[in-house]
Parts: sequence; structure tokens; C-alpha cells
Amino acid sequence: MDDDVDDGDDDGNDAAADENDYVDDDDDDDVNDGDVPEYQGEPDDISRAKAREAAKQIQGPCVVEDTCLCFNALGGLPGPYIKWFLEKLGPEGLYRMLTGWEDKSAYAMCTMAFSPGKPEDDVLLFKGIAPGKIVDPRGSRDFGWDPCFQPDGFEKTYGEMTKEEKHGISHRGRAVRAMQEYFLKQAEQNS
Amino acid sequence: MDDDVDDGDDDGNDAAADENDYVDDDDDDDVNDGDVPEYQGEPDDISRAKAREAAKQIQGPCVVEDTCLCFNALGGLPGPYIKWFLEKLGPEGLYRMLTGWEDKSAYAMCTMAFSPGKPEDDVLLFKGIAPGKIVDPRGSRDFGWDPCFQPDGFEKTYGEMTKEEKHGISHRGRAVRAMQEYFLKQAEQNS
Repeated sequence: MDDDVDDGDDDGNDAAADENDYVDDDDDDDVNDGDVPEYQGEPDDISRAKAREAAKQIQGPCVVEDTCLCFNALGGLPGPYIKWFLEKLGPEGLYRMLTGWEDKSAYAMCTMAFSPGKPEDDVLLFKGIAPGKIVDPRGSRDFGWDPCFQPDGFEKTYGEMTKEEKHGISHRGRAVRAMQEYFLKQAEQNS
Repeated sequence: MDDDVDDGDDDGNDAAADENDYVDDDDDDDVNDGDVPEYQGEPDDISRAKAREAAKQIQGPCVVEDTCLCFNALGGLPGPYIKWFLEKLGPEGLYRMLTGWEDKSAYAMCTMAFSPGKPEDDVLLFKGIAPGKIVDPRGSRDFGWDPCFQPDGFEKTYGEMTKEEKHGISHRGRAVRAMQEYFLKQAEQNS
């Protein structure tokens, strides 16, 4: 629960519902743990629903985070369900799922959803997308599907990059920067 | 909302939250419609969470229904997410997803989850499982993934069967009969 926003942990879906941390990783956020449930649906709808539920629970502003790995041949799936597919199949199985298609292109998408604090408030979405392709796994096994995702313009998978290299280009880094920019602008306008 | 329990509509996940119908099909039960949300997780956990949420909403006894199509090669997935995979890929795409595996075996599973009416009550699960395999689609396109599922012991897909044939052997028919038996026994014991 104390991971900060830059920890590079993007192997699944993360939900935030902690009064002290604006962004909080909780890998135990399944339907049983009584925190913010994971919903089914389109990624934006899931993020909005989670942010509203988190705001209701903590009665204050919060950010929830959701990571999708979307295969173009599968119409964007597994998308928000990547956590479960990774758990059952590992990175090898994710690659194997695309055997029937020539198109191995994919994109990693991180959505940071900010609720000002009331369940009825509009939720702001900040998205970071990294286009790439699904490959036979290479590199470190430390973070979920990293070894099978090779971002466009690189010969390395996420799993073969250093943390710094990855953060500079990753879907998650992009979402964080989009959110930062927004709040910096807001602060400037209000000062 | 007025479909009864025998309508054979098992192309996705169904949730019940209607005071008048103990079992109710609502194909619009995605995260946006404000009824019972679809959760992510293991099938039993999803069913329990939905039944509890429905009981909370209608403040009375209710049954919710969930249908999974589980590919053994994928560790039981797409399972509870089959609705989204069907939507994006159609029955052909479901078959194509298994190109990389020799094992085409699968099972269709229907879970009827009964809540006595209070959110804190234990939820009873009645399950019907039909083992079979995923095949290149054949037969009627009327019900979701029916054309690509061939139950064990038959040369026909669900899509090639009559409604009566299918109901006699289907995962859904089995779940309904399991639930009926339970309530008939209860009634006998109380009479």
C-alpha cells in the first residue's frame, strides 16, 4: 500500500483508496478484499467507476490507476483483464494466444483517474499509451508481462530495459506526466 | 427484463435485480447501467459479490446468474469475460484464439447464486457444467458462442441443436435443475 507512483509496477490493475497516498498500488484488489472492486467493461468506464467508488470510500480526492495490455488482433483484449491472463498463462501464453493472427501489434495503456472527492463529481482521466508488439518473452521476469512487450522504436522488451529507460517511454510514465502537467497548469492559473 | 429462467439465452453474463422475478436476464448489465455491476475475479467470487449487491439493492431474496465459457488450455479463461471476447471476436475468433494449442477442450459453466436477502447472508451457489470442445463455428448464430461449442458426446454444436435438445444437456439446464432440487428438498423438509 506504500508504493509510490513511480514504482514501475504495472503487471495488472491497480486501485487506490488510501487517504494518505494520492496514488496507491494494491495488488490484492480482487473482488474479495473489500477495497475497490475491479469491474468489467470498457477501460474508461472501469476507471471512472473505480474512482467514484474510491472517492465514496475515502470521502476525499483520490487517484485510481488501471493498466491494460491490448492486442489489436483481439479488438483491444485482454485489455483490462490482462492480470488474469498473465496469472493463468504467463508471458509465453500471452504470446501464444496470438498464434492464429499475423498481427502481433499491441499497446500498453495506463489510465490515472482522478476524482475531486464526491461520488457525483466528474472523474478526470489521464492516459498514457505505449504502442508496440507482443513477442516471444525476453529479459527480466520481475514485472508481469514486461518480457513479452516490445515498444515501437526499440529492439528491447520492457523486460530488457532498465527501470529508468522504461519509465522514460512507458505508458505509465506518460500517464503520470499527463496528470502532472494538468495539475501544474491548474496551480499556475490559481496563483 | 422479463425473460424467464428457461429462455436459453446464455451468451454472456446475466445479473438479476428485479423484485418480481427471481431470475432475470439483463444483457445490459455492464458497468454503466447502475444495476448490478459485473466484477472481475474467480467465477464463484463474482457470483457471490453480484448476489450480495443485488440483495442489497432489492432488499429481498434474489438469484443472479453468471455464465462462463472456459478454455482448458487458457487455464479456464476467458471464463467470466467471455461476453467481451465474443463481442470483439465473434465465435470464429474464439476458435482462432486456440490456434497455438492442441487442446481445444472447454467447459460451459452456469452459476445460479441465491441470496436469502440480506447482504451479510451466505450466498448459495448452484452450478451446471457442460464439458465439450471449441470448434470452428457451425449452426445457428442466434445465441452468442453457441456455434463454436460442441458438448462432449455429441456431433452437434449448441448452435446446431434445437432449443429442447440443448436445454436437456446444457450447463444452464443443469444449474436450474440443481437449484430446483435444493428448493424442493427444502420444501419437503418444511412440510
